[in-house]
Amino acid sequence: MSVTTKPDATPPTSAEPREAGTITRSATAARERSAVLEGLIAQKPGEYRVLTGDRPTGALHLGHLLATVANRVRLQDLGVEVFLIVADYQVITDRDETGNLPATVREVLLDYLAAGLDPERSTVFTHSAVPALNQLLLPFLSLVTVAELERNPTVKAEAEAALRRQQRGISGLLLTYPVHQAADILFCHGNLVPVGADQLPHLEMTRTVARRFNQRYAAAQPYFPEPDALVTPSTTILGDDGAKMSKSRGNALELRASDDETAAFFRRAKTDAERVITYEPQRRPEIANLLQIGAYFAGTSPEALAEEVGPAGAGRLKAVVTETVVEGLSPIRARRRELASAGPRHLDELLARGNARANEIADRTLDDVRGLMGMRY
Amino acid sequence: MSVTTKPDATPPTSAEPREAGTITRSATAARERSAVLEGLIAQKPGEYRVLTGDRPTGALHLGHLLATVANRVRLQDLGVEVFLIVADYQVITDRDETGNLPATVREVLLDYLAAGLDPERSTVFTHSAVPALNQLLLPFLSLVTVAELERNPTVKAEAEAALRRQQRGISGLLLTYPVHQAADILFCHGNLVPVGADQLPHLEMTRTVARRFNQRYAAAQPYFPEPDALVTPSTTILGDDGAKMSKSRGNALELRASDDETAAFFRRAKTDAERVITYEPQRRPEIANLLQIGAYFAGTSPEALAEEVGPAGAGRLKAVVTETVVEGLSPIRARRRELASAGPRHLDELLARGNARANEIADRTLDDVRGLMGMRY
Repeated sequence: MSVTTKPDATPPTSAEPREAGTITRSATAARERSAVLEGLIAQKPGEYRVLTGDRPTGALHLGHLLATVANRVRLQDLGVEVFLIVADYQVITDRDETGNLPATVREVLLDYLAAGLDPERSTVFTHSAVPALNQLLLPFLSLVTVAELERNPTVKAEAEAALRRQQRGISGLLLTYPVHQAADILFCHGNLVPVGADQLPHLEMTRTVARRFNQRYAAAQPYFPEPDALVTPSTTILGDDGAKMSKSRGNALELRASDDETAAFFRRAKTDAERVITYEPQRRPEIANLLQIGAYFAGTSPEALAEEVGPAGAGRLKAVVTETVVEGLSPIRARRRELASAGPRHLDELLARGNARANEIADRTLDDVRGLMGMRY
Repeated sequence: MSVTTKPDATPPTSAEPREAGTITRSATAARERSAVLEGLIAQKPGEYRVLTGDRPTGALHLGHLLATVANRVRLQDLGVEVFLIVADYQVITDRDETGNLPATVREVLLDYLAAGLDPERSTVFTHSAVPALNQLLLPFLSLVTVAELERNPTVKAEAEAALRRQQRGISGLLLTYPVHQAADILFCHGNLVPVGADQLPHLEMTRTVARRFNQRYAAAQPYFPEPDALVTPSTTILGDDGAKMSKSRGNALELRASDDETAAFFRRAKTDAERVITYEPQRRPEIANLLQIGAYFAGTSPEALAEEVGPAGAGRLKAVVTETVVEGLSPIRARRRELASAGPRHLDELLARGNARANEIADRTLDDVRGLMGMRY
């Protein structure tokens, strides 16, 4: 498969079932393309606009920092324009409760800022505050079939899980969320989306929507970019119980935790019975996890760190990792405390500014879309 | 089943499949309730707000006038506040082409005005112009399951038809349109929706969305009304080929047609081989159709008209019907010509005013909804 993007030769018509084969781009091709992209970004960062974000279900943890947030800061610092969506409507795709959203959104904002996101260069906004973005869901939904929505791996997995648990089935919001995501990415003409390899099908939906919209309404001059995936190495950070770190499992080390809590977290962390520390992600996932975390903050490789600790064992490894994490998070935590002590007003103003900027862009895009679809009266 | 509306005793949770039995309200109960409503409307018209509308797929025809438009004018003239949505996004639920929308929307507007809709008392607006209305689709989609969406009779019928025709299946926009309709009705707190008995399940979706929203986010004080159906007698007007009158079948008599075209239409109209005119809708649908149309404009009953024509036969019936229709449509057509000759500017201004009013209301509702859902930051 070619690593360049190519639009379909013919527009989708209602008469022919199609594209089944192209729904999932090969992960290998996407990784190769990402290596090329990194080179292009380094040369001309100003030509890229990234859209990414989080569901505001709680304060961010170490897993978020290593898997996504650090990479966003890196891209921003390279000169790429970063749009960060706080996807508040997506909180209710699979749950009935929203929790205390204003408080959670502020915590997420604090984490972003503490980790290095600069509101002068990056735009943070919430779904619920940008009507014109949300309106794009309607024309976009006309471009995809229900069968295509149901083929999305996350939607499929959730639907099967609901069936197993004899629940009443997935919500309409969950089914349509890949299209909502297309609206998130396309409203700001995002052309670069950092994703793990497992999220490629989601981006494929956005590419499909962009391509079909262009074919149907902007044939002379494509309007939406078909965004590229920037595949990030899949960094799955484990919690203290050895399972994937997650807020809802209660096994996470939050970025805002204290040094003592950090030390306690690593003391609790699962290891295995072997004495000598080696880096073997498949066979020894818990040890590999500690090595990855330690290596990240020490600026070294997991292999080198394993070599260094070697026969000193898991106790020594935990001590080393705790020290590097406490040290590595120290500036982030100091900045976070400083920002938090200034009270919520500054954060609220910052979000209002981000929302205003997102609205300005979304209004312009929606107006263009109305024009292209012949809906200006 | 009771004719009064009653909220479910318990809020929907993801653990229990439910409401299967209440999805379709009995048509009989709805008709009884409608009779009661007519009495209440006559007493206090100011307490009712109607939301209804059309897809702008072409100029309106005689079927529209008799089935829906005349009733809207009647409600408006009783003092009920009428909101009329020109559902432009719904044009692409089941087709790839939008046609020349601005021209079509103007034709529909001309028909509305000519038929007696008064823009000082009624609000006409388009979907695409009201982002805050469209945004409501997102929280509303979280309140219904995909299974519930798939149970909607229109969605079901279209999905089966697509399967039969080996098409690529229905679009995401078609699947979600009953929820979009809920947004149309609820954004303006519409509490009365004129529907044919076959459309009751659609309104049931709106009632479900309103009820669940209230239970989840406005338990103390319900925010959205559960709108009542005002069931209109099902008036199916036939085209000149004996099938249901429809723009896409090309068998329609447009309101804007000339007197000559009207005469030609009725000359072409199918009848049957029996000489004596009788009103037997089941056995003689084409004759009954002519009688219904004639009676409507003559202000009499189909039975009385049948009696009057009797042995004079179909030729005489057609002459009588042509005359009453030409006479009955004469003031509508005169007003239409006058409005059309004034050029599109007046129509565009009128729509802009309607859109501005709809936006004002939708912005207020969305702000309330954000507040209730805890999404004000």
